[in-house]
Parts: sequence; C-alpha cells; structure tokens
Amino acid sequence: MDEIVIRTAGKNQVVNITEEVQRIVEKEMKRKEMKEGICLVYVPHATAALTINENWDPSVCDDFMAALAELIPKGKWRHDKVDGNGDAHVKAAIIGPSVTIPIKDGRLLLGTWQGIMLCEFDGPRERNVIVVCR
Amino acid sequence: MDEIVIRTAGKNQVVNITEEVQRIVEKEMKRKEMKEGICLVYVPHATAALTINENWDPSVCDDFMAALAELIPKGKWRHDKVDGNGDAHVKAAIIGPSVTIPIKDGRLLLGTWQGIMLCEFDGPRERNVIVVCR
Amino acid sequence: MDEIVIRTAGKNQVVNITEEVQRIVEKEMKRKEMKEGICLVYVPHATAALTINENWDPSVCDDFMAALAELIPKGKWRHDKVDGNGDAHVKAAIIGPSVTIPIKDGRLLLGTWQGIMLCEFDGPRERNVIVVCR
Repeated sequence: MDEIVIRTAGKNQVVNITEEVQRIVEKEMKRKEMKEGICLVYVPHATAALTINENWDPSVCDDFMAALAELIPKGKWRHDKVDGNGDAHVKAAIIGPSVTIPIKDGRLLLGTWQGIMLCEFDGPRERNVIVVCR
Repeated sequence: MDEIVIRTAGKNQVVNITEEVQRIVEKEMKRKEMKEGICLVYVPHATAALTINENWDPSVCDDFMAALAELIPKGKWRHDKVDGNGDAHVKAAIIGPSVTIPIKDGRLLLGTWQGIMLCEFDGPRERNVIVVCR
Repeated sequence: MDEIVIRTAGKNQVVNITEEVQRIVEKEMKRKEMKEGICLVYVPHATAALTINENWDPSVCDDFMAALAELIPKGKWRHDKVDGNGDAHVKAAIIGPSVTIPIKDGRLLLGTWQGIMLCEFDGPRERNVIVVCR
C-alpha cells in the first residue's frame, strides 16, 4: 500500500496523477513478482474525488468541472450553514472516491486517452491518494 | 463473503452502514490472517446504490438526495408506465451499486469524515449489502 | 484477463454485456479452481462507460441516456472545438469506466434485475471490455 500526497492550488481543480500511480504500480508489481492484477486508487476525503478522463486536451477537465458547477451550484445547500462547502460534498458523493484499473504486464491497462484525475472540490488543500495493487 | 440486511424506512433514504461493514472487515481479515487488502461493498438491487459521504453532519446526505431529486425528477420517465420508479433506476445507475475501500491494519482505510452510505431510491424495502474482502 | 470486443451501432447506445462477462467469469473461475472473488469489468476508452442497471425493461436504459442527454447537452463544451464530442467525455467521466461485482459459486453475484451495461456516448465505434477475476 502506497500513498501520494498532492497539494491542490485552487478551490476547484483537476490534477492528473497518472504518472505517480503508474510508478507505484510498476514498483509494487515488481516487488510482488506479479504481472497481472487490479489497482485501487482511493482518496480518504469527503470533498475530493477520483475519475478517469482524457489526458491530452486539458479543456476536457475544464468541461467536466464546468458541468458539475452548473448541475450542483454553490450556495444552496443545508450543509452550507456548517461549512460553506455543501456543493463540494454532493459532487464528491456523485463522482466517488475511487477508481479501479486492471494491471497487465506490470502496468496500468489504461486506454491511450485515459488519465487518472484527482478532483478537488474544496481546495486548496493537501490530499492523500492511496494506491493498492492486488 | 458476508451479507448485511437493511430494512429501509422511506421512499428515499440514506443509511449509514459504516459500522456494520467495519465489523465484517475486522472479522474477515482476522479469519484470513491478513492485514492489507481491499473491501468491495455491493448492493444487488437496481433501485438502490452505495456512496461514500460525510458521516457527521446528516444534512450532507439530505443535500445529496435533494440534488439527485432535482436533477432526476420523478414522473417523466418511460419506465414509469411499468413500475412508476423510473427516477429510482436512473439515480441508481448514476451513483452505482458498489464502493471499494482499501483495508490497512485489518480495518477500512476511510478518511475521518467518510462513511459508507446505502442510498434507497425506491423504498421502503429490504436491501442486502454484500461485503467481500480480498 | 480476458477481453470482449463490442461494435456499437449508434452515437449513443446501451449494450447489455452481462452474458459475455458471465461466460468469462465462469471459465476463469473454473481455470483458477476458485469459487469466490471479485470481477472488475473495465473499458479503456474516454467516451464510453460501464454501469449496472435493470436488464428486463429496455426503457430503463433509454431513460438513463435521456437523463444524461438533458443534464449534459451536446454542443456547449470547450473540447467541442477539438473533437465535437465534449458531452461524451463529461458523461463518461461521471458514469466511470468500470464496475466491480462479487463472484459467488463461480458466478457473478448480480441481483435478479441487474445487468452490466456498456454505455456508448460517441459511437458507432469498436469498444474493448476488459474482464479481470481476482
């Protein structure tokens, strides 16, 4: 089990963490002398999430965040009275805190256009990302 | 493989099942003499779902259900002619029937504010929750 | 690790792949001489997704696609200037590229009404579906 620490920069931000996860998977699978398996990537946070999305044109991630901001607007939630971040919790619960990816030949079996994206909905904060290979 | 049975009380309801899942994980990991792994929690139902969300302020779960009710309103779906619960199916398909969580030191590696939430979209019903540790 | 190839027919389409996945799971579990486990189903594509939804009334899948089309309308995304499929990327990122299902007695532990659905958001295309049993 490994951990990546990411310092996010904005209130809402998408961070491509594919290379960091890939490095951990390669190291772990070598250590375990395994070629095939599955990789669970997990954020132990209630206002961040993980998704898989195109890794080449950054406007895809902007579109994703813009869509969520429109569907789950800021400032109309009951939890806002406590923390002011009700929208961040709803977004995180819809997108979810994990992605699971097959491992083949000791590497993540991502498609050509797929990247692993940490979604920050209430930053800037320090976020932990847990990586488990089985 | 273990199973939890939950009797939901309302048409739409969020039930915090974290403690029940945690107990199963601790027992299973002890039995297997394992410390690390992953836990799959799964509902075999098409009008319920699982998510991970804040476990302290209950208004976070109210906000989540209110957001879904606004995005996927009741009464405008083709399936309503069959069962009257078209909205419940769409919500369940978007949120999804499972969550997967790392296990460390024989326990779920949830964040401080994370709880496992059974989402009932067409209750009241009896719901089964499957827990698998690998 | 096995792969299913699906040729989708429309721009937006839901394809029930439950039987194909079930066949692979039964074969794999027999080969591994295992009865219990988990099955990861994964699409290595950035404009397709996987979900679990009712397998009997096809209007449930029509409702699901109609809801997404209304929430994430076509033609208003920054990525449209590159590829014209910005909506497909946002939908795929929200629904996600994988489902994970328990395996019991060498078979998928799906509920009576649950089917595994490949969601095409930018077809027609050839899509690969990866199936891993652990």
